[in-house]
Amino acid sequence: MSDNILELLAPRSVAILGASDNPIKAGGRPIDYMRRYGFAGHVYPVNPKRAQIQGLQAYPELAALPDAPDVVVVSVAGPEVEQAIDQCLAVKARAAVIYSSGFAELGEAGAAQQRRLVERARAGGLRLFGPNTQGVANFRDGAILHFSTMINEEAGQDGPVAIVSQSGAGSSIVYGGLRRKGIGVRYMVATGNEADITAAEVLRAVAADPDIRVLLLYIESLKDPAVLAQAARVAHQRDIPILTVKAGRTQAGQLTASSHTGALAGEDTLADAFLRQHGIQRVADFRELVEYSQVFIGGQRPRGRKVVAISNSGATCVLAADAAEDQGLALCQFEGDGQAALKAVLPSFVSARNPIDMTTALLGQPHIYGQTLEVVAAQRQADMICVGFPIGGEGYDFADFSAQTGRFALASGVPVAVSANQEWVAQAFRAQGVPVFDSERAAMRALGMLARHVDVNAAALAEPAALPPVFAKDEAGDSVSLDEVASLAALAQAGLPVVQHRLCRSADDVRHALRELGAPVVAKGVSSDITHKSELGLVRLGLADEAQALAAFHDLDRVLRGLSASQGIQYGGVLLARQQRGAFELAVGAHIDDVYGPVVMVGQGGVLVEAIDDVQFLVAPFNATQAREAIGRLRIARAFGALRGMEAVDVDALAQMLVRLGDWMVQAQGQVRSVDANPVMVSRAGVAPVLVDAVVIRAGETS
Amino acid sequence: MSDNILELLAPRSVAILGASDNPIKAGGRPIDYMRRYGFAGHVYPVNPKRAQIQGLQAYPELAALPDAPDVVVVSVAGPEVEQAIDQCLAVKARAAVIYSSGFAELGEAGAAQQRRLVERARAGGLRLFGPNTQGVANFRDGAILHFSTMINEEAGQDGPVAIVSQSGAGSSIVYGGLRRKGIGVRYMVATGNEADITAAEVLRAVAADPDIRVLLLYIESLKDPAVLAQAARVAHQRDIPILTVKAGRTQAGQLTASSHTGALAGEDTLADAFLRQHGIQRVADFRELVEYSQVFIGGQRPRGRKVVAISNSGATCVLAADAAEDQGLALCQFEGDGQAALKAVLPSFVSARNPIDMTTALLGQPHIYGQTLEVVAAQRQADMICVGFPIGGEGYDFADFSAQTGRFALASGVPVAVSANQEWVAQAFRAQGVPVFDSERAAMRALGMLARHVDVNAAALAEPAALPPVFAKDEAGDSVSLDEVASLAALAQAGLPVVQHRLCRSADDVRHALRELGAPVVAKGVSSDITHKSELGLVRLGLADEAQALAAFHDLDRVLRGLSASQGIQYGGVLLARQQRGAFELAVGAHIDDVYGPVVMVGQGGVLVEAIDDVQFLVAPFNATQAREAIGRLRIARAFGALRGMEAVDVDALAQMLVRLGDWMVQAQGQVRSVDANPVMVSRAGVAPVLVDAVVIRAGETS
Repeated sequence: MSDNILELLAPRSVAILGASDNPIKAGGRPIDYMRRYGFAGHVYPVNPKRAQIQGLQAYPELAALPDAPDVVVVSVAGPEVEQAIDQCLAVKARAAVIYSSGFAELGEAGAAQQRRLVERARAGGLRLFGPNTQGVANFRDGAILHFSTMINEEAGQDGPVAIVSQSGAGSSIVYGGLRRKGIGVRYMVATGNEADITAAEVLRAVAADPDIRVLLLYIESLKDPAVLAQAARVAHQRDIPILTVKAGRTQAGQLTASSHTGALAGEDTLADAFLRQHGIQRVADFRELVEYSQVFIGGQRPRGRKVVAISNSGATCVLAADAAEDQGLALCQFEGDGQAALKAVLPSFVSARNPIDMTTALLGQPHIYGQTLEVVAAQRQADMICVGFPIGGEGYDFADFSAQTGRFALASGVPVAVSANQEWVAQAFRAQGVPVFDSERAAMRALGMLARHVDVNAAALAEPAALPPVFAKDEAGDSVSLDEVASLAALAQAGLPVVQHRLCRSADDVRHALRELGAPVVAKGVSSDITHKSELGLVRLGLADEAQALAAFHDLDRVLRGLSASQGIQYGGVLLARQQRGAFELAVGAHIDDVYGPVVMVGQGGVLVEAIDDVQFLVAPFNATQAREAIGRLRIARAFGALRGMEAVDVDALAQMLVRLGDWMVQAQGQVRSVDANPVMVSRAGVAPVLVDAVVIRAGETS
Repeated sequence: MSDNILELLAPRSVAILGASDNPIKAGGRPIDYMRRYGFAGHVYPVNPKRAQIQGLQAYPELAALPDAPDVVVVSVAGPEVEQAIDQCLAVKARAAVIYSSGFAELGEAGAAQQRRLVERARAGGLRLFGPNTQGVANFRDGAILHFSTMINEEAGQDGPVAIVSQSGAGSSIVYGGLRRKGIGVRYMVATGNEADITAAEVLRAVAADPDIRVLLLYIESLKDPAVLAQAARVAHQRDIPILTVKAGRTQAGQLTASSHTGALAGEDTLADAFLRQHGIQRVADFRELVEYSQVFIGGQRPRGRKVVAISNSGATCVLAADAAEDQGLALCQFEGDGQAALKAVLPSFVSARNPIDMTTALLGQPHIYGQTLEVVAAQRQADMICVGFPIGGEGYDFADFSAQTGRFALASGVPVAVSANQEWVAQAFRAQGVPVFDSERAAMRALGMLARHVDVNAAALAEPAALPPVFAKDEAGDSVSLDEVASLAALAQAGLPVVQHRLCRSADDVRHALRELGAPVVAKGVSSDITHKSELGLVRLGLADEAQALAAFHDLDRVLRGLSASQGIQYGGVLLARQQRGAFELAVGAHIDDVYGPVVMVGQGGVLVEAIDDVQFLVAPFNATQAREAIGRLRIARAFGALRGMEAVDVDALAQMLVRLGDWMVQAQGQVRSVDANPVMVSRAGVAPVLVDAVVIRAGETS
């Protein structure tokens, strides 16, 4: 059984089951492509009805081939796939690429058929791409087992990009977009229904190809986050970005995805959290994948976030300045000598500011551009350059402008992004290897993504993200809801700060507790059968002395015993806890997600938690830096800083609490199903956060 | 003095001061353009150094012309502009288009020069475009007084679009983008520094041209919001959209804009509020102006928000579904007959859902597309259609697909947007008058903007937005800060609900007040010199009975009198107010903005108001619907609904309060400079909101 996907993408010989003599049919295209793109290995068309196919000898079945094919393309009707797999197994092929549709994307019956295929293949050591895939292609070797029509539209050329997509059309769209920009593509892999090989697995493999400099990923659902995390590690070690479209962000999108590639619905906020934690940048669609890949191709990396913008349009300067601020990039200004040098170059009627407005004066004085670049280069302040030429025409020498730009980028190593609106202007720059965008916003965003890549990559190397644990979600046994005392005990044992409390079953217990805790206290009726205590009146706040505490105890004890006798509800006693004040009430929780495993949540707490919807997720395990960043993304966190004479919230302590909760969920291997702590009291005065109420749900004893 | 801008854009004769024989120089281009584009009026080149210019007789000065020119283009060096204006005045020209730079964009000295130009021109009844403008063009008449190089790049053609831009390059960029898509442009007007004629004034004029169907506006600052509001009214009456880029959104952008067109810095959130209130849709940049204008050209309008998406790519279906949900559009599903009809058309291996995935089966069975359109048309459910053809090639008959799409759109009146990634595919659809976008996201957003236009237009017709008042911000006199009692009295008189309160100067007053108000009460020391009472300990909460109230009174009274004696601080007595509880504390305020005039603010209140930054603005006057919408955009408003057995907040009462505050600010004509009410207590139980603390600042007596 081959785990070496790179080898499967570079087969020595390929057979096509369902081969067609017609080079524009699915079973004919790969034969045509492999011959035209100089595939050096054997291509064996298999079709019992023909002796020759596209000029090649055809065979009636795999068993009739002169030697065993490395990889078999299966281009037959859905019901014949099982038999095709048997043939592959019989000749000991290493992998099959199954074009055929009619499996998991059609619902449960198709999914069952698909599972049978995989079981059979696994047993015989055969790896599968698909089913429901347009195939895989490797343009270095001409190993094009892909039936995309786009290869006829835009000629293939080997290059530094790998495209991995659950959607076949997606792989083609991105391929077409890159080729139209003259960018070479080595791998174009569609994984379809992913019965066996997943997009993440392919990504991990191609990330290790030393010629690859950009990884582009399209997914609708993620089956194996742990593998994607490994792919991200490989990418970080090689300083290459993974740009990702995760479609099915919305409910409508997820419904659609499930009938496209049989995708599992998954919480999009978790995908977001996961991708962020693993330093994977997310973009919106195929167009953006193509656009933003450009800026990574050349390999230049900025040292920092200082950008200089240059244009012949003042409006472009304004829009570029807006865009720079949006991207968190700084427009550095030139002082002293630099300012003087810039003034000498520019027309007298403009100010020598960054963004640098060359104005239409450039029309009569084309030297302004080159001289401006020289000043910028000599000043060595700029980490990145954003050039906007929204208008070209007679009098603008773009052959010269683009050549100067290319030389500047090469000599300085400073990344440059150009925006241009006319195709001939764009082409002049592209011909010099300079990335070109169709708006100043897009150009600036590309530079922002480049700067972000540098930050994210450095962070990932300094403190690699932990790999997500792999354990099955255990839904077999019962769920057991722990009562509050047991819940707090469990969380305390996990190292989380819980409110000081005592369980009381008698008046003596109450007196004792009050002496230990000090007034004021709160009293709560405890029962593992009751989760919403306040709504049943089982919470008493602000008990200021022994008399009040005792009265509350007797009251709650009576109610609980009554409920126990009449309704059979578990009696857990009365909990007395120190009444905790805080500047903020947060909610903290954890659960096991079907896709991502243990997940920790932090957000604004209180009764309005759902309505306010100010929450952030972290996929466990995660580190304190990631936890601090997640807390920082909460809207309420804007109020956590020191202000109006009040101290700042101890975010580190809160982050530490989240890390411990995440680690505990991982260690529990799914045995802890969920944690729901609300409120968690957060103070300003250097006091650590405190959990004052919590419910832990565990897996029951296995029966 | 001509107020008829449409006439100025259709001059009968044009003179060019600083005319050039070189047709690619600024002073030569308009002559060349007007001759080539068939301008029927006279063109008079003026240049004392030449007898002929571009084959036309040249004149030494305006006074030498055979008759007075309607409009004069001024293409001379900055210092010569004043003399040029004098010439224009002498021959009684109606308007001058001043290309020359070197005015307000260079700072205060230039601004002073610019003011002198305007004074001179106004006195003589001469209107000015510019200075620092690329000019104005009217392609119906060939009246091209614009020196854009883009007109040579993309040939002009009259059409239904008007471009109005403070930036000359901006006008050219948008013109070029539209022309590349084959869309005709009637007006291309750059207003530059707007010494006299503003973008809003031009927009109001061209909105009334009955052939114009789309208005595109680029601004960096807005000098006359009232005029833009009038332009919006005209546009609403004609059911045409104003798509707007307002650049200088950020601090960096505003700094840049001020050195570009001498733009005033203005709060971008106010621009946002203003544009929204007047039903003007905002987009991000020139590219978006061009893209989204497409969908308005044909004049089709959707009846509702139901959209059907169709594609040959499953991934496009998923992304389209995501985009539809983002845009608030509903993917209607087909039931019964419709479902059966769709099943009969589509390949057996896909489900008959919307988005409709034709899959690559379309390659062999091109009739699927037409039949799908027929089913959609017959079902009459769809208000809009979004078609995605991300992949074309051999086997796809786009001549046929596009013709069918065009026929469908024409016959049904249902708006259609197509997304395509290959230029030849896009062109096939464009040739049929179908708008084409480069991603499914953009196509769906265009449809979303169309639906929004319908909503916004209907709302504007039903309840026209009030025009903003025009009065100068009065900064001359002193500001007088009213004390709390006077502030509350002023707001109560304006019809706002203020907390029940009594001003006490003696123990008897306190006893009296307590009987009227009922316990508990709060006591506050009153002084017009003190705005932060709590920080000085001048607020006492929860006074439960007469004894506590009296104690608090004596205490505060002593402190106040002490401060009065020692620091000369005004003694205003002690205010007793009913202690008001509420589910939420909001902040409400108002001030006079330099650009937009009176502005009302509503947001989360309390001491963390700045940090939390959950505020919305309304430009006064505004109606209750607009106020409700602004409240609805507050994040905290998510918690205002009925939930967990709690009643909903009375948003109508809150909206009414904001409307009254706005009206009061307008009526006060700038005499009320600001209102700051925090907290405003908002309850759930059907109780109206109550202002419990407020500071009003008025203009002082004019000295």
